[in-house]
Amino acid sequence: MASGLLDESLDAVVARINFDEAGLVPAIVQQWDTGRVLMMAWMDEDAFRETFQSRRGTYYSRSRGRQWVKGETSGNTQEVRELHLDCDADTVLVVVDQHGVACHTGALSCFEVEGDPGGR
Amino acid sequence: MASGLLDESLDAVVARINFDEAGLVPAIVQQWDTGRVLMMAWMDEDAFRETFQSRRGTYYSRSRGRQWVKGETSGNTQEVRELHLDCDADTVLVVVDQHGVACHTGALSCFEVEGDPGGR
Repeated sequence: MASGLLDESLDAVVARINFDEAGLVPAIVQQWDTGRVLMMAWMDEDAFRETFQSRRGTYYSRSRGRQWVKGETSGNTQEVRELHLDCDADTVLVVVDQHGVACHTGALSCFEVEGDPGGR
Repeated sequence: MASGLLDESLDAVVARINFDEAGLVPAIVQQWDTGRVLMMAWMDEDAFRETFQSRRGTYYSRSRGRQWVKGETSGNTQEVRELHLDCDADTVLVVVDQHGVACHTGALSCFEVEGDPGGR
């Protein structure tokens, strides 16, 4: 399986990421087999490193000002299968196997408020 | 076909969006049939309204400080099929039919630098 950035050196990857003024990069989280977009979150450098190394979806909460591991309280963790950067290296695509649901509302995806996107 | 927010009143939808301090919201763009994540861009209120009304993917360039229509120069426009907000209404998911490629590098998706995500 091609794993995108996971096949490269972590330090080399981190050096390429264009973090914003706040030191953050948006992370789009997608279910590996269905293609469903599950959620959008933010990563600082530490959260990216933790995600890369632990293969658990790990993010940075802007409101709480700290790192969080998806599922740390709910148990709905994300097993990271691939990491990708976009062409200008300022957005991360995290391809995961979502255990349980991704949304705190109990929905599989955070984008299901008005029906399933693309029927996924 | 369920079109998400497109089935609602534009003004009511806009009133629900939590734009950030800069008046922007991130927009994740996904191909409707394959589920491939094509790109990430930003929308201000005007770009969201334009996207909703014209059904053409329209964004706000932070570097150029102006609205742009995807494909206005390349011809690689995006026909918008669905719009969704996430659970806290601070991210838009734009489900499109991408004409031609989405990335200025000539790749179908901006996230293909290290191989196709999820094999999509």
